Amino acid sequence: MAWWKVSAAGRDVNPDLTSERERPSFNVETLTNILDGGVEETRVRRAVVSTVIKDPVFSREYLYFKTRSERYEGAIRNSLHLKKKFKEMGWDENGREVDYVYRAIGGETALNMHYFFIRTINNLGTDEQIAKWIPLARNYKIFGTYAQAELGHGTHLRGLETTATFDPNTQEFIIDTPQITATKWWPGDLGKTSTHAVVLAQLYSNGKNYGMHPFIVQVRSLKDHSPLPGISVGDIGPKMAFEHADNGYLMMRNIRIPRENMLSRYSQVLPDGSYFKNGSDKIHYFTLIYLRVSILRGEVMEPLMKACTISVRYSAVRRQSELKPGDREPKILEYQTQQQKLLPLVATCYATNFTVQYMEKFYDEVYGEIQKENFNSVPELHALAAGMKALLTEICSNGVEVCRKACGGQGYSLYSGLPSLYTKVTASCTYEGENTVLHLQVARFLIKCFAGAQLGRPLPTSTAYLSSQGAGTCQARTPADFLTPEIYMKAYEDRAYRLIALSAHKIQNLVRSGMEQYLAWNSTSVELVKASIAHSHFFTVKIFTSILNSVSDQPDIKAVLKQLCDLYALHGIFTSAGDFLQHGYLSGKQVDMATTAYLGLLAELRKDAVPLVDAFDFADEELLSALGSYDGNVYHNLLEWVQKDPDNKKENSVFETYLKPYLQSNPSKL
Amino acid sequence: MAWWKVSAAGRDVNPDLTSERERPSFNVETLTNILDGGVEETRVRRAVVSTVIKDPVFSREYLYFKTRSERYEGAIRNSLHLKKKFKEMGWDENGREVDYVYRAIGGETALNMHYFFIRTINNLGTDEQIAKWIPLARNYKIFGTYAQAELGHGTHLRGLETTATFDPNTQEFIIDTPQITATKWWPGDLGKTSTHAVVLAQLYSNGKNYGMHPFIVQVRSLKDHSPLPGISVGDIGPKMAFEHADNGYLMMRNIRIPRENMLSRYSQVLPDGSYFKNGSDKIHYFTLIYLRVSILRGEVMEPLMKACTISVRYSAVRRQSELKPGDREPKILEYQTQQQKLLPLVATCYATNFTVQYMEKFYDEVYGEIQKENFNSVPELHALAAGMKALLTEICSNGVEVCRKACGGQGYSLYSGLPSLYTKVTASCTYEGENTVLHLQVARFLIKCFAGAQLGRPLPTSTAYLSSQGAGTCQARTPADFLTPEIYMKAYEDRAYRLIALSAHKIQNLVRSGMEQYLAWNSTSVELVKASIAHSHFFTVKIFTSILNSVSDQPDIKAVLKQLCDLYALHGIFTSAGDFLQHGYLSGKQVDMATTAYLGLLAELRKDAVPLVDAFDFADEELLSALGSYDGNVYHNLLEWVQKDPDNKKENSVFETYLKPYLQSNPSKL
Repeated sequence: MAWWKVSAAGRDVNPDLTSERERPSFNVETLTNILDGGVEETRVRRAVVSTVIKDPVFSREYLYFKTRSERYEGAIRNSLHLKKKFKEMGWDENGREVDYVYRAIGGETALNMHYFFIRTINNLGTDEQIAKWIPLARNYKIFGTYAQAELGHGTHLRGLETTATFDPNTQEFIIDTPQITATKWWPGDLGKTSTHAVVLAQLYSNGKNYGMHPFIVQVRSLKDHSPLPGISVGDIGPKMAFEHADNGYLMMRNIRIPRENMLSRYSQVLPDGSYFKNGSDKIHYFTLIYLRVSILRGEVMEPLMKACTISVRYSAVRRQSELKPGDREPKILEYQTQQQKLLPLVATCYATNFTVQYMEKFYDEVYGEIQKENFNSVPELHALAAGMKALLTEICSNGVEVCRKACGGQGYSLYSGLPSLYTKVTASCTYEGENTVLHLQVARFLIKCFAGAQLGRPLPTSTAYLSSQGAGTCQARTPADFLTPEIYMKAYEDRAYRLIALSAHKIQNLVRSGMEQYLAWNSTSVELVKASIAHSHFFTVKIFTSILNSVSDQPDIKAVLKQLCDLYALHGIFTSAGDFLQHGYLSGKQVDMATTAYLGLLAELRKDAVPLVDAFDFADEELLSALGSYDGNVYHNLLEWVQKDPDNKKENSVFETYLKPYLQSNPSKL
Repeated sequence: MAWWKVSAAGRDVNPDLTSERERPSFNVETLTNILDGGVEETRVRRAVVSTVIKDPVFSREYLYFKTRSERYEGAIRNSLHLKKKFKEMGWDENGREVDYVYRAIGGETALNMHYFFIRTINNLGTDEQIAKWIPLARNYKIFGTYAQAELGHGTHLRGLETTATFDPNTQEFIIDTPQITATKWWPGDLGKTSTHAVVLAQLYSNGKNYGMHPFIVQVRSLKDHSPLPGISVGDIGPKMAFEHADNGYLMMRNIRIPRENMLSRYSQVLPDGSYFKNGSDKIHYFTLIYLRVSILRGEVMEPLMKACTISVRYSAVRRQSELKPGDREPKILEYQTQQQKLLPLVATCYATNFTVQYMEKFYDEVYGEIQKENFNSVPELHALAAGMKALLTEICSNGVEVCRKACGGQGYSLYSGLPSLYTKVTASCTYEGENTVLHLQVARFLIKCFAGAQLGRPLPTSTAYLSSQGAGTCQARTPADFLTPEIYMKAYEDRAYRLIALSAHKIQNLVRSGMEQYLAWNSTSVELVKASIAHSHFFTVKIFTSILNSVSDQPDIKAVLKQLCDLYALHGIFTSAGDFLQHGYLSGKQVDMATTAYLGLLAELRKDAVPLVDAFDFADEELLSALGSYDGNVYHNLLEWVQKDPDNKKENSVFETYLKPYLQSNPSKL
């Protein structure tokens, strides 16, 4: 058991939470192990987390009161201290410890792009370049960043406008942002930290454009940190969250850098300006996939898990209004409407966890294949990563906001922890590829697979169902039938199949009727996005059901996971019923049955609600929430937080300056 | 034409916006007048807005860089300055000018609860109490607030725990917050401003509880603003937004106040402790309805209008990626997926505007009736206000967030204006009645009406359709049929009717099968919320279609409003298709047709997109957005904002303290 549970149990736990924990239908610790991926992983995670949260340097106690500058300073301090901590503790800088630290520290770190700078040089630099730059970066003799996105272009990389023009006379590249839309915009660590950047720029040599290439550019003095001549650099200002991150902008006016500063493992410019390619730089573009997979755990799934933990515990402690006339005010978790807000999201956490585990494993497999020059699985991985990124960021972000609103007014206070979770997680819908753009990339892959299936070509596993579809209707005859994975899996499969097939036919028909291909695509894009979502949603349901087979020897665990899987699937049918009804796979009566089964599950899972979020195993210091602490003393917590607010301790200058003159001009005799 | 359009037109307007404005299908000024409720209203609004935004005291230029304390101070300064401004300009403190000022100033005002304190005393005080307290409050000799919500209870008023116990020996009330959940929590102006509060408390006299009553309690010294003995008072801390508002908490430990401080127009305690009621205090509870109606314009509709203005203009200027191979990058507004995000929301702005106009008028009518002691329409108004509040806060909040995400990464910067709009508007889903609670109140009314209809009783206008429903199916045979208001109105009516009828039957059946009434209600509450939404949604569609008849003499206006109305209605069918399909009113084929009509409208309305948001007539100073300015120079604007950031001008202390020691220990030779 985690020490934070033991220690909280030693305090006065709110009896409303104690009673929730008395009779879980399953072993909570076992479920935690499954979520972590094994007993040993749980042990390592807890060791890392407790080390971090016990270290006062990393304390987040006053986080909600801090300014942007203070948050930034804290993130830098954390990162520099972490380097020592890793050494001291013997943690692996490339291991799972990194995830666990990030979790424990709530993401309040800097230098993430510095490490991406290192990664990029390692991937794209020659051996000489690696030998020169990596030690400097590793020892913080320089601080780097990766400058790709521009003011005018984000997801669409080919449109980037920064140029690198080779001057054979001086053997230099001239790096230039020729118009304001070419200004580099967003790179992390650039705002106030970096001295160097890997700049992505359009390479020109001998008058010819060779496309995007990476160049190392120094942007600030190592002596006094001032921008070098010709450089404008600074912070892009306040954002919806990420207060600690110094995202920056960078303008470069004909900056000259030596020829050696072009990262040249895969392509180089010779002294005479001629250009050579040495093999494929696919490995670099594989990084995009890596980023999309790697954010899912810490930036997407954990925020929803935290939000569920907070809102479910609060709902078991908050008593309000009247259910049975004359009775004591019930816990708000007794209301069906509250169950319907929260329990499907708890199920979504589990679905997401298993999907993320799958994606991490699949990524590692494909990465292993690539090392052996086998690129066969890359298109499928690319599509899956794009689809899962777009689907999970959307449902997890929306879910966090539902949790927040489910806590009523208290959810609006930063002390609840929920606003900060939302304003941060929602960014994931946009960064590492805007979701609509990603869905359309997935759709392109699906349409291609569908066409391949028509021609009898073999398909990747995740789209194999496009080959074998027979028209049909659902066989369910009772609500209980909808608690059969085969039944709802088929419904999801049919929905995905039909939406893909209909989009493909629509495009085909439009083209046949004389419309240009690109217009036909655009005129179908709303439906294509729906098809991509349906495909990805189906995929997550499939993953979840496959997990059920792997826990057959643990009946208590299997039972509760099956309920969660059923709920996850039926929630989707309940909220997107139109997709399942429109082409007749489900009848109206069957949707009624599915609804009955769905509402029945809410009542069932309500009993395990608190143990199910306890299994996520967050320490109070990780949740940073007055409403979500393990002991459930929410009102005490809120009053304690209020006492911490520095504004409540300061003199109120507004009184002296503005109020007093009124109150005391000709004072009343009150 | 508004001066801000003339003045922006004098600058270099981005040609991508100029071209959008060249051929609107309608007269923009006329549409602005309709939105405002008449030519004269437009004139007054512009006069007020331009006065406010030209006054440097009200400037919001550096708003995004300000701390919570600075925002609070600014709000106080604004409010005190406004009082002078109203006098100077001869504006009506009870007139529409108040709305227009609030719009122009972006809600950065304080003392709102002070004015509610005044309103409460005027409503519930005796003539003597009014004579004593109102002049003090009006002249700022005291600052008041209204302290109702507590840590333990918000929407459920009967559960409030603060007590007021009459002591006949001293002729005083003893005001007490007997446990921490009784702490008053949330009242605006209480955190740092108020000297007095109207405190809602359970009245006890001679050992008997008489329920909630209002008492005037002094909380802070008029001399030095310190809390009076026995009082704990302060700010409840940082929130998701409303940084300028000093929401407060208040604990009272056996505070004694004179008998005369109970507001006694409708009930009083005599010197011997006996309790008398003098008529009904319904007028006070009518205030709840007033609040729900009055927030809709400034707090709910205008944020969505602003968000649409920003995101549509940006989408007409932002060029990205590739549509037609080889062509110039298109405006992102050309993408169907972008149209589908934004244009239904533009239509929603119009639907909301007409609904709000209707609700304000209906409220005034019922208020007039009440003055004549006619309370007949109050239940219908209560249900409509609750339903519209719950529906519109939800769709407008969600809509703002869709607009924000539709601007990609730039929408995440505070400079876009969008994050601040969202974090503020989302609060409206919770305050003045949590939305799920409100939907269930509406549902109770609907179920009652439905039962009445079964018994042949007459129903209020808004639920009359519950009497006259004949089962049937939709008559549409082509996509074009779905551009007929009668067709989609009937579909909405049928959906609402069926969801209400099914909920009623389900409750009935559960009770017949032996379930207790309250459990049957709770087991149906997810469906009851759906029924309430369907009813309210239908109501907004009805309002919008009725507007079309009133503009028959202006064919250009009628044409574009009809397109908007069609789009609003078909968007609802597209996104909630399941409700329309499930019981067979629409067939799958008809939903296909509705989808075709819907997608066709997107392409049509795209042509007028910019003029349609121009008609909302926001000055740049109101939008406070680098992306949404009238001239469309978004990239210049962003770079200008970045220069304003005080953090970019300050010395970076992090360099000295943290980075320099690394960079300069054994410096590299770079």
